[in-house]
Amino acid sequence: MNLAISLALAGKKVGLLDIDIHGPSIPKVLNLENARITLDNENIIPVEMMNNLKIMSIGFLLRGSSDAVIWRGPMKYKIIKQFLKDVDWGSLDFLVIDSPPGTGDEPLSIVQLLENCTGAIIVTTPQEVALSNVRKGITFCRNLNVDVLGVIENMSRFICLQCGHKTDIFKTGGGEKMAEEMKVPFLGKIPIDPAIVEACDSGKPYIKEYEESQAALAFKQSIMQFMDSK
Amino acid sequence: MNLAISLALAGKKVGLLDIDIHGPSIPKVLNLENARITLDNENIIPVEMMNNLKIMSIGFLLRGSSDAVIWRGPMKYKIIKQFLKDVDWGSLDFLVIDSPPGTGDEPLSIVQLLENCTGAIIVTTPQEVALSNVRKGITFCRNLNVDVLGVIENMSRFICLQCGHKTDIFKTGGGEKMAEEMKVPFLGKIPIDPAIVEACDSGKPYIKEYEESQAALAFKQSIMQFMDSK
Repeated sequence: MNLAISLALAGKKVGLLDIDIHGPSIPKVLNLENARITLDNENIIPVEMMNNLKIMSIGFLLRGSSDAVIWRGPMKYKIIKQFLKDVDWGSLDFLVIDSPPGTGDEPLSIVQLLENCTGAIIVTTPQEVALSNVRKGITFCRNLNVDVLGVIENMSRFICLQCGHKTDIFKTGGGEKMAEEMKVPFLGKIPIDPAIVEACDSGKPYIKEYEESQAALAFKQSIMQFMDSK
Repeated sequence: MNLAISLALAGKKVGLLDIDIHGPSIPKVLNLENARITLDNENIIPVEMMNNLKIMSIGFLLRGSSDAVIWRGPMKYKIIKQFLKDVDWGSLDFLVIDSPPGTGDEPLSIVQLLENCTGAIIVTTPQEVALSNVRKGITFCRNLNVDVLGVIENMSRFICLQCGHKTDIFKTGGGEKMAEEMKVPFLGKIPIDPAIVEACDSGKPYIKEYEESQAALAFKQSIMQFMDSK
């Protein structure tokens, strides 16, 4: 999500597709909970913000915020296909797809449906329990011929706002080490910042609202490293 | 997982079934990464520890720890069915099922396959973005006639080990408020403790190794509250 916002802030025409069918968070974190998609002939018109960002999420189709989508894999495949084929994305510079973690129906469907996928950016936390699943994610990409563009280590270290003491709550550095072992690019570490949680809950894009914070700067540096390598 | 360990420590005969097909963490966090299941006639013999705890996870069937399980929903249904029907669980006081988050194929399959499910314990973090998905999980349970036994709020508040300053990294209290709104029991708040991460990564059950820690005590209190209410 922050990648899509950053690209849109840089003037690119961006689509953001949320394929988390069971836990769509994009509408909430972008303060679009009341937004609804519209139809134009056979096409679905995505929700727009910032003039150059188009967004689609199953969250826009649910009546209440507590409504659950109780679907098995084949239904998820169908809706993801609709999100790709029947949504009027127009001309885009980038289509950013936000997938739930793991190697389930959602990422599998999107990879099979996309005709030209540039690659995957993989987000992890630093501890071994998370990395062990992320290694599976990298194997998944390799098996499906998806280029791994890079790994970002999130929740890397916490700095006490009172005394400055650094605590490695979820450890630190594990993502970098794993990227090296798996021979994929490492893009950077993002520290824990309670303001990220606050920003998400209040629907303000963190990367825009707290642009001078350590975490936002770390994130921007990761993006720049990725863009420079392309 | 900690629930199963706690029940086993209290002398109960416990089965622990990990139905996270894409990210099975139980073998790692219990230091059973090299354990393999065996076969006896048509039956699968689960891995045992502590004499009274039997464990089954797809992790025991993967050759390498980076191997990915790239399966759609119907295949997941089949393996979960095997885990229930073909595993020789013997006589158990409790079968604890550890499900991945969300309302996908894994929890749906288990609910449809279990003949008598006591109910679900729902773990959340305190911030609204997480609660919004947990509300969907409660709706899912209601639609499928599964009793919600209670909500536990994990990662509730962080206390700096250096200066004692409390930071609500992921906020605090949201789980309790949501439980009240959704009219389901609230079982307790577990604070963030970096030792939990360390214990999981090194395969030592936190609840057993750090039994006097604040988080372990809070967890035990939650369990007691739950057991008392039954």
